[in-house]
Amino acid sequence: MTRERLYLYDTTLRDGQQTQGVQFSTHEKQRIAAVLDQLGVDYIEGGWPGANPTDSAFFDAAPQTRARLTAFGMTKRAGRSAANDDVLAGVLNAGTGAVCLVGKTHDFHVTAALGITLDENLENIAASIAHLVAEGREALFDAEHFFDGYRANPDYALAAIRAAFDAGARWVVLCDTNGGTLPSDIGRIVTEVIAAGIPGTSLGIHTHDDTGNAVAGSLAAIDAGARQVQGTLNGLGERCGNANLTTLIPTLKLKAPYADQFEIGVTGDALAGLTRASRLLDDILNRVPLRPAPYVGASAFTHKAGLHASAILKDPTTYEHVEPKLVGNARVIPMSNQAGQSNLRRRLAEAGLDVAPGDPALLRILDRVKDAEAQGYSYDTAQASFELIARDELAALPRFFEVKRYKVTVERRKNKYDRMISLSEAVVVVKIGEEKTLSVSESLDATGSDRGPVNALFKALSKDLGPYQSYIEDLKLVDFKVRITNGGTEAVTRVIIDSEDGQGRRWSTVGVSPNIVDASFEALLDAVTWKLVRDGAVPPQTMTARAGQAAT
Amino acid sequence: MTRERLYLYDTTLRDGQQTQGVQFSTHEKQRIAAVLDQLGVDYIEGGWPGANPTDSAFFDAAPQTRARLTAFGMTKRAGRSAANDDVLAGVLNAGTGAVCLVGKTHDFHVTAALGITLDENLENIAASIAHLVAEGREALFDAEHFFDGYRANPDYALAAIRAAFDAGARWVVLCDTNGGTLPSDIGRIVTEVIAAGIPGTSLGIHTHDDTGNAVAGSLAAIDAGARQVQGTLNGLGERCGNANLTTLIPTLKLKAPYADQFEIGVTGDALAGLTRASRLLDDILNRVPLRPAPYVGASAFTHKAGLHASAILKDPTTYEHVEPKLVGNARVIPMSNQAGQSNLRRRLAEAGLDVAPGDPALLRILDRVKDAEAQGYSYDTAQASFELIARDELAALPRFFEVKRYKVTVERRKNKYDRMISLSEAVVVVKIGEEKTLSVSESLDATGSDRGPVNALFKALSKDLGPYQSYIEDLKLVDFKVRITNGGTEAVTRVIIDSEDGQGRRWSTVGVSPNIVDASFEALLDAVTWKLVRDGAVPPQTMTARAGQAAT
Repeated sequence: MTRERLYLYDTTLRDGQQTQGVQFSTHEKQRIAAVLDQLGVDYIEGGWPGANPTDSAFFDAAPQTRARLTAFGMTKRAGRSAANDDVLAGVLNAGTGAVCLVGKTHDFHVTAALGITLDENLENIAASIAHLVAEGREALFDAEHFFDGYRANPDYALAAIRAAFDAGARWVVLCDTNGGTLPSDIGRIVTEVIAAGIPGTSLGIHTHDDTGNAVAGSLAAIDAGARQVQGTLNGLGERCGNANLTTLIPTLKLKAPYADQFEIGVTGDALAGLTRASRLLDDILNRVPLRPAPYVGASAFTHKAGLHASAILKDPTTYEHVEPKLVGNARVIPMSNQAGQSNLRRRLAEAGLDVAPGDPALLRILDRVKDAEAQGYSYDTAQASFELIARDELAALPRFFEVKRYKVTVERRKNKYDRMISLSEAVVVVKIGEEKTLSVSESLDATGSDRGPVNALFKALSKDLGPYQSYIEDLKLVDFKVRITNGGTEAVTRVIIDSEDGQGRRWSTVGVSPNIVDASFEALLDAVTWKLVRDGAVPPQTMTARAGQAAT
Repeated sequence: MTRERLYLYDTTLRDGQQTQGVQFSTHEKQRIAAVLDQLGVDYIEGGWPGANPTDSAFFDAAPQTRARLTAFGMTKRAGRSAANDDVLAGVLNAGTGAVCLVGKTHDFHVTAALGITLDENLENIAASIAHLVAEGREALFDAEHFFDGYRANPDYALAAIRAAFDAGARWVVLCDTNGGTLPSDIGRIVTEVIAAGIPGTSLGIHTHDDTGNAVAGSLAAIDAGARQVQGTLNGLGERCGNANLTTLIPTLKLKAPYADQFEIGVTGDALAGLTRASRLLDDILNRVPLRPAPYVGASAFTHKAGLHASAILKDPTTYEHVEPKLVGNARVIPMSNQAGQSNLRRRLAEAGLDVAPGDPALLRILDRVKDAEAQGYSYDTAQASFELIARDELAALPRFFEVKRYKVTVERRKNKYDRMISLSEAVVVVKIGEEKTLSVSESLDATGSDRGPVNALFKALSKDLGPYQSYIEDLKLVDFKVRITNGGTEAVTRVIIDSEDGQGRRWSTVGVSPNIVDASFEALLDAVTWKLVRDGAVPPQTMTARAGQAAT
């Protein structure tokens, strides 16, 4: 069966820019365009040249992409010709092969927002699109508020898109601008539009997530016959965001009926880079990746329920609708009270520890984990701390150093300029072999501000670790999470620290104590120890593996 | 027109517990149940009694709810009677009026996972449901993997749910356990199930968000005739989460065709508490609220695009599909104090501060809050700290005392019995009028354990507050939340402290600093000051109201 071509139109760089808290630099736009191009979308909408200096700069040094780079603008204003409209000229000057112009299709917006007649608006649409075509560009018409407009006045909404189509628009994009149209209505209206004479092969769909249905609305439009779908990476966009291409792409590529019916520009190899593309975008924008994101989230293939976890071990299709590796993601079976030994062996194998079934250490590890969880520890994310417990029980945890004592002071007082300041200072005493080292550190950053007791402890600890110093020089604390939880009968503090090193590895460790500083220090020690283990640091002769961690 | 009843079934406390990183305490479950009950869901699934100590404890002290509290379990095992099945007995022992049992409907799972015959499974379902009914309970059957099962073997899947229905199940809940079924398939299959003889008024729908379609799948099932919809607050749940009730409820309550067709248990007043309910859940779980969440997210009604914002000021329906206040959310128009001021006046009135429209203090308060938020403060929950800022700008904040300096030490070392212990100690110097007091305290609890630096600071501060001592004697710190956030360019720590007093009042305050101890101390000072204000403590003659808080 020949599969029909379905086109992907990305608007991360234009509509995605409307996300609260997001403001792209030109360089970021270039990096994101490269990610999109590698993924295989058909169109990359780069922004509105002339309206926004960053967007103009992006088009001035437009990247070479396989995807069609598209400039965005709006239809000409009334009372002037398309050739004499300066806003339109700004858009055309970007020199892109494709240009998308937004225009009104809802009668209320034409009269209330633009303040022109309904006929003037039709003429603006037709003349603008015809001008693009005359200039040799691929023309797209973004039909703003189309679904609301169609409900209010179907004849006018249809007349507006027909004006664009008859003037030569390659695509008429039906936009649910306010995000309030439900999928069943989208499906019905797209069907009616096709029946009215605009072919589905010229129709695009552009939805927003205000009712949590942006993806479903896009699928409903495709089901009805639309053959271009618009969206953004990670669902960026105004208000609740646009249709999430990171979610749509794997559904279209992997699942029935779409996978059989359509050809899209994303190859199997590119799909396997989807999770990485999603994380990269978060990285560029300094956003925390959404754990439960469909397909690409860290939790998307995490099986926490005990019954699920044990079935997954027998056959992954029992609780997974697609294979995680197809989208570059991975299955995670976290430790939990219900988890069994086979779970545990799989998790150890992931950490490079192969343990034979029935090894008595397995039971000891499970017991240690269970005891720790009862005290408030959690190993759902703190895989590195879990690994240290396992290594300890498997006699595979070298004893690198011992922290004999520490002391940290936080003081708040007036400085000599009579300004209130805080100051943190830590002393850590470490024994390596027979050698005892005393290190002291303040906690001032580059600007001279105090970063607090945990930072002071980390600085003092990492100041002089003797033979291990070279291993920890590239160690950075990148995140720090604190939660009050119940350990036994009393509330305790659980601290999870995320660390990163020069190789780009990232790992999480956990500490628990009623004392937040002490809990943090425990997680800190685990972070350092894990790196020493993984990098193969050699412990001093006089120290041998033994149960119990250094400072506990 | 008489509207049909549509039932809401919440599984936040059971399926929501499968969220990676979430582990409810019994107290948290009680608080969440209260939130759900106030919202107006029809069923609250409380957990699996007997399988999980926290769940058993929750049912042992089951809260009185208007909603039907429901215990969850599974159908009996083969080879024993329902009355002799200990797991089932554990579920029944919780004594709830409704019981929901999960069972297999996918032939592959029956043979592969359970390892029993297809007929044995049907008999287990029928006997278990009949046993619930004989015990006088409302019986629900959770048809696990129903949609996958129906695709693989429709006759068997139908036989399984028919066994439950014929045995007296009030509801047969069709579960898309793996989350891979697309809305169009869900709609088609529900239609076929109803045609096969199970009435829609006995059918529930339970979806997961693995393709980003959990909400749309639920709506498709309702469109096809199902009359119970299951989900969780904020879409918590295994992997990508369950259908998000926080999204579904406003769609069902406010939007066509649902609002006209159905009656749900959520009143208009309760709907106006939806945003608060959503934030409260995040607060209880110490999760960062999702800004772009439909209806309840902080960005859901934020109009960043310039063209949108100016149109919104003329007529909100231009870019909003529903009114934000209907769900207790608020429109945000960046750079527009116009919209902000009436909002602000309402919030001040809630704190007993009536301010005339146009009072210049309103602008000053908005500016202070905006500046503080840019530094990482958040007043979503910390209403008491917000109130102190407002009082300060309204010259209604007495200056009770001043903290001249403090110093806190945390030490970890061996004690005389050669055991590692930690010890925290704080010194606080307070000036009240002309009187200066120096207080020192350790941080030991009744068992002699160290509770950490913040506890030590609180103890030292509250040891001797001179004339205010009687006001703060019943002050208790009941919760403490820490989040790393961005203040300007650097990561800072935000601490929110919940306090309680003898009258049962509870209030939240916030502190921000790169130094966690300092952030905590700031929140602590606000907590004490708020209580003194609210209890009408009289400041010393020599101290007068002035801008800026005591210790800043």
